[in-house]
Amino acid sequence: MNKNYIIPNEWSIVEEGFDKKNVEASESLFSIGNGSMGQRANFEEDYSGDTFQGSYIGGIYYPDKTRVGWWKNGYPEYFAKVLNAPNWIGIHIQINNTKLDLNTCEVSDFKRELNMKEGWLSRSFKAKLQTGEEIQVSTKRFISVKYNEVGAIKYNIKALNFSGDIIFSPYIDAGIENEDSNYNEYFWKTLKILEGTNEGSILAKTLKTEFNVGTAMKVDFAVNNNIIETTQQNIIAEKSLTYTYKINVQEGDTATIYKYGSYVSSLNYENEELIEASLKNVQEAKELGFEYLLEAQIKSWEEIWKTADIIIEGDVKAQQGIRFNIFQLNQTYMGTDARLNIGPKGFTGEKYGGSTYWDTEAYCIPFYMATKDASVAKNLLIYRYNQLDKAIENAEKLGFKNGAALYPMVTMNGEECHNEWEITFEEIHRNGAMVYGIYNYVNYTQDFEYVSQYGLEVMIAIARFWHQRANFSKIKNKFVILGVTGPNEYENNVNNNFYTNYLAKWCIEYAVDCLNKVKHNYPEDFKRIVAKTNLSGEETYKWLKVAEHMYFPYSEENNVYLQQDGFLDKEIIPVDELPKSERPINQKWSWDRILRSCYIKQADVLQGMFFFEDKFSSEELERHFDFYEPLTVHESSLSPCVHSILAASIDRMPKAYEQYLRTARLDLDDYNCEVHEGCHITSMAGTWMSIVQGFGGMRVWENGKLTFNPQIPKEWKSYSFTINFRGNIIKVYKSQTECKFYNESGNEIKMMVHDTEISIPSKQLVTV
Amino acid sequence: MNKNYIIPNEWSIVEEGFDKKNVEASESLFSIGNGSMGQRANFEEDYSGDTFQGSYIGGIYYPDKTRVGWWKNGYPEYFAKVLNAPNWIGIHIQINNTKLDLNTCEVSDFKRELNMKEGWLSRSFKAKLQTGEEIQVSTKRFISVKYNEVGAIKYNIKALNFSGDIIFSPYIDAGIENEDSNYNEYFWKTLKILEGTNEGSILAKTLKTEFNVGTAMKVDFAVNNNIIETTQQNIIAEKSLTYTYKINVQEGDTATIYKYGSYVSSLNYENEELIEASLKNVQEAKELGFEYLLEAQIKSWEEIWKTADIIIEGDVKAQQGIRFNIFQLNQTYMGTDARLNIGPKGFTGEKYGGSTYWDTEAYCIPFYMATKDASVAKNLLIYRYNQLDKAIENAEKLGFKNGAALYPMVTMNGEECHNEWEITFEEIHRNGAMVYGIYNYVNYTQDFEYVSQYGLEVMIAIARFWHQRANFSKIKNKFVILGVTGPNEYENNVNNNFYTNYLAKWCIEYAVDCLNKVKHNYPEDFKRIVAKTNLSGEETYKWLKVAEHMYFPYSEENNVYLQQDGFLDKEIIPVDELPKSERPINQKWSWDRILRSCYIKQADVLQGMFFFEDKFSSEELERHFDFYEPLTVHESSLSPCVHSILAASIDRMPKAYEQYLRTARLDLDDYNCEVHEGCHITSMAGTWMSIVQGFGGMRVWENGKLTFNPQIPKEWKSYSFTINFRGNIIKVYKSQTECKFYNESGNEIKMMVHDTEISIPSKQLVTV
Repeated sequence: MNKNYIIPNEWSIVEEGFDKKNVEASESLFSIGNGSMGQRANFEEDYSGDTFQGSYIGGIYYPDKTRVGWWKNGYPEYFAKVLNAPNWIGIHIQINNTKLDLNTCEVSDFKRELNMKEGWLSRSFKAKLQTGEEIQVSTKRFISVKYNEVGAIKYNIKALNFSGDIIFSPYIDAGIENEDSNYNEYFWKTLKILEGTNEGSILAKTLKTEFNVGTAMKVDFAVNNNIIETTQQNIIAEKSLTYTYKINVQEGDTATIYKYGSYVSSLNYENEELIEASLKNVQEAKELGFEYLLEAQIKSWEEIWKTADIIIEGDVKAQQGIRFNIFQLNQTYMGTDARLNIGPKGFTGEKYGGSTYWDTEAYCIPFYMATKDASVAKNLLIYRYNQLDKAIENAEKLGFKNGAALYPMVTMNGEECHNEWEITFEEIHRNGAMVYGIYNYVNYTQDFEYVSQYGLEVMIAIARFWHQRANFSKIKNKFVILGVTGPNEYENNVNNNFYTNYLAKWCIEYAVDCLNKVKHNYPEDFKRIVAKTNLSGEETYKWLKVAEHMYFPYSEENNVYLQQDGFLDKEIIPVDELPKSERPINQKWSWDRILRSCYIKQADVLQGMFFFEDKFSSEELERHFDFYEPLTVHESSLSPCVHSILAASIDRMPKAYEQYLRTARLDLDDYNCEVHEGCHITSMAGTWMSIVQGFGGMRVWENGKLTFNPQIPKEWKSYSFTINFRGNIIKVYKSQTECKFYNESGNEIKMMVHDTEISIPSKQLVTV
Repeated sequence: MNKNYIIPNEWSIVEEGFDKKNVEASESLFSIGNGSMGQRANFEEDYSGDTFQGSYIGGIYYPDKTRVGWWKNGYPEYFAKVLNAPNWIGIHIQINNTKLDLNTCEVSDFKRELNMKEGWLSRSFKAKLQTGEEIQVSTKRFISVKYNEVGAIKYNIKALNFSGDIIFSPYIDAGIENEDSNYNEYFWKTLKILEGTNEGSILAKTLKTEFNVGTAMKVDFAVNNNIIETTQQNIIAEKSLTYTYKINVQEGDTATIYKYGSYVSSLNYENEELIEASLKNVQEAKELGFEYLLEAQIKSWEEIWKTADIIIEGDVKAQQGIRFNIFQLNQTYMGTDARLNIGPKGFTGEKYGGSTYWDTEAYCIPFYMATKDASVAKNLLIYRYNQLDKAIENAEKLGFKNGAALYPMVTMNGEECHNEWEITFEEIHRNGAMVYGIYNYVNYTQDFEYVSQYGLEVMIAIARFWHQRANFSKIKNKFVILGVTGPNEYENNVNNNFYTNYLAKWCIEYAVDCLNKVKHNYPEDFKRIVAKTNLSGEETYKWLKVAEHMYFPYSEENNVYLQQDGFLDKEIIPVDELPKSERPINQKWSWDRILRSCYIKQADVLQGMFFFEDKFSSEELERHFDFYEPLTVHESSLSPCVHSILAASIDRMPKAYEQYLRTARLDLDDYNCEVHEGCHITSMAGTWMSIVQGFGGMRVWENGKLTFNPQIPKEWKSYSFTINFRGNIIKVYKSQTECKFYNESGNEIKMMVHDTEISIPSKQLVTV
């Protein structure tokens, strides 16, 4: 496909001109969603060219049988697939009996816009059919944030050079498949199809998981903006429902179909209510009307942008890139439902299947915490709290005892469900990210009550895991953690991964700290938790032994912690010296060669130093950055942001900016030639962090203090961002010459800026 | 299924009484074959109970698409499946319109015998049908060693209590499937079905690989031993051909069907000749007649046993066990075709798919070398020589250059084709076994010409591989080999596996030794090889650098070489102290737990010491045995024999015998509850070695000298075996009191026995 075809624009993603090679990439980039459901930007009308159809409902998944060479104990039974859900957007269109299909007709003046400010997708084009009819089409579509089970489409066709029939055949279809099914199985079963006048609904259930979903549509027609009545003809197939309407138009007339769609699922309703609920949704939507719903949509997004927007002056592409990232993150997860989470591809594709990775704790929580109300980040933590029992079960399956928990690498319902076991099953560092997420949340919000109510149980179970997972090495006279994979997935089954060992030690120590705090400040909770978990002082003493005597591989010669035992046995050649023809190594090298090479897929030691920056001196950070950065190939979308933030923190803005560029427009410019599969949603939070934590230098430390250290890339005129800090809105502005803070809240706010404490009164602007 | 139901017998495998639970296990154990083709002991008549149907043709395989979570570069495209071939044994049987099916009728006096001395399978039983008819059935079946594309069946039915019709419907069927197909695909396509009178043939081809196979049958009938003419009715289906014959019998009559079958394949014929060739085979077989073919079969096996038999007195079960192993090895591979090799399950099942593993070089060559003519072992070496170009291609795919070769872990045609990549793709030690096979052969046969003609090219390519695969570790100031898996598959991606590093060093040194010898003794060959391989003195100098400075992990404290870097970081708890409920660990523990444990699946360091016993002192052997043996769980069938031989060599006969028992009746007693999937053919060679090399202490050293050190387990009265040493037949007899050698050859033979040199004149018996 083409690259860089997206037109720069501050608030919109824009494509001009029709190029079939871009269809699948645009379907990803122009995706729309509302946190509860979402879809790729597939055309409403038929398209016979290459297309990747996708519509998704949060929390609805299918357990696809794992594909593996030889089964080994502890492997997950299934790979939870994000399910391609029934289609509600489809409208077959015929002009005088010729089907409209952009793959076969002459297309001109094609334009597609994803308006991120207002949250809608539009498309316009002229088409000349093989039979000579010319039409002007304009469509607008959105998935409502306010009415979050509803989507709406307005589809206009103007007859440019003919009088005759325009036939609209809107349909809903449950006979859909996943492209990435392991064994080409169907995932849905159609249970019931209900017809009606201009409305209808299909009840379908997912096989195995038995989620029931009602998918409804309701349609309405206008000619030249006057609502008209039309005759409906019904076509019911085994799995779909289609209504056909013939509208006679005169040359110059515009015929319009309004189509309202709704998904409702057994996550929120009884099965027998679903048909009715879905119909009620589309009936109400029709009552409110397209324009009213659109107004509500614009307001919803206005609200979201108030605290989420980042403004960059002097670089339109950077502005577009960062807004795209913020927009897609919000489309994926709104934070109102603790049963949902943030899938790596959001609602833009199927790849990476299962919904929740450690990306949520390591990358996404900071974004949601700073751009939304504290309840949103809390919901993400509660999601894991609710899955604690499953995490304990998961650890039991692997031989752990006594309430130890191992959170899954990938999950939908708390069970482990990854497809790629070789790489991921030893990535136990993920367990540490669960605790880090709590730590981060408590520092930021000062809501320690979360720990006493929920978090401590998670921490205890995870401390137990680390205690059991480490073993004592007589020869090292230390505790070691063998057979792990760190964040750097270009290593496998290594011993004493620094990041993992560090997290393990820290998790134990932080758990014991919190235990003591809860004991003193929340004695009732303490009693409850001790009873529930059967915890004894003797046990925590044993944990601490492990933490205290944890082993960390270290090179005296290089004065750095080593990524793992034996790292220095590798041939160390900086990435710069690799011929360009050999990169990306994951495409050019065999897997075994990658494994024994020194190249680092994504921040690993540096991920640890990023998490716990305050535990290391600047010199240590620099030394490790200088050792590991030249060996890092950044072949994970989660890597450059961490390097960017660290580079900024050690005053290396050119490096920070270089790394920022690798992450900011990853999808828009399709660096890795894979955007057609969907967008990299979770790494978008990393981009946000690169500006706020990287350039802005924002930190909230363990003592609860907020600090900033704003710097600006020389390529920009200015940037500004907004954060919600404990309910107080703070706006930060940084230009090449100025640094300003505006306190929008009713309270005075204290913070450190460039090592100086400042205090900003309510509604005041301070220039630093 | 039941265990230990096989009746002890010196020369036969015997089952008495019909138990449906044993059907699949017996189908494996009673398998028959002739090295070119073979089959499970499936019933000829229909059986509606659990059965695992299988008939196989050497060298005919299917490339089944690999099943893997995420594809990684260097993974093999396909898993070569040993193909379940068209069925030629089938005979539907009806008695007065009631189908004979042992699953539904009353069965008594059931007996099955696999006569290993004579090479045939028989079955007899009485059956009472639901409709009351009682019959006495006796069958005999064999696959001819002499006429190696032919099999024959004699199937008798005696009408015990009725007069009426016996309907025989012999058929051939190409519509068969593999149980272990990765994606449930068909592997065969039927091309042509040819009918005839009492004979017919089906031409079918394998999909993708396009092997063509002709499968023919010819039948003949008798009543009370008088050949009769019958009327034939033909039923042709899409993929099968069935003839139906109705024979009227009186109470007491015996009706007999003789069925001759044949496979011919495009390995040996042009495609268009196959139908005719297969028919010619069955026509000739019928001409010769069942009894004549049977006589020839008995003679063939008599010939085989002459040099292959091991006699154990005082332990019938041990006698039966060792003969079963020798019998199955011969059924799997006769050594006459250098395109064939020895699959881990031979012709007894589908599992482990591809035909050739390093088992051949490490375990099977010694057996074939000592029990057959030298040409047989040579054919096994030539098999690898012929695949050298593919091994070089394979290495190129993984990033190696300049003619380096990496032989596949599993192969059919020289390409890598394994299904389980996580475990095997780093098992590069296999490459060393290729050279060890040559070394072993040259020592045994003194046929150094093999090296100058073929072997040296293989050795050069492999030395190149090791040279490139090692890298220099600055920190160790040695060459290291990172990211490998040793023979112990309970470790994965480890650094500096002792066995691998040792083999690498040895391969280089042996290659250079051989190079020098060829240079001096076969200058023409030397010139040819240097020209072909572009070899320079400078290059070999670089190899030797690597060999000379190879790193070996060593523990000063324990005074042992370590299996790999970091081995002592593990928690070291002897297997004895593991609760029985946790074993076998590959069934009870999760894979990650196994990986980080100290438990050894199969001989690893000890495998190296077994290969190169002369390079280590007895004290070293003992020390390493004492260190590693207690940590070894022997969850590979290839493990106990190595331990048994080493134990014997350090004078620990009780341990040697204990380990021998784990291997000798592995399948007959179904230790691992998996014999229904097929027999462990390659490990049977290890059992043979346990007696000859272990108890008998036979060695042939690098200097070409033959030595013995016979010991006997106290449980046995005596044992004796025969070896073919450079064309001379030597019989070795060892009892509790005596040790005798008989030189059957025309030459005087020198050998060392218990460190004393003895010389045995032609046709003389010497007591030591």
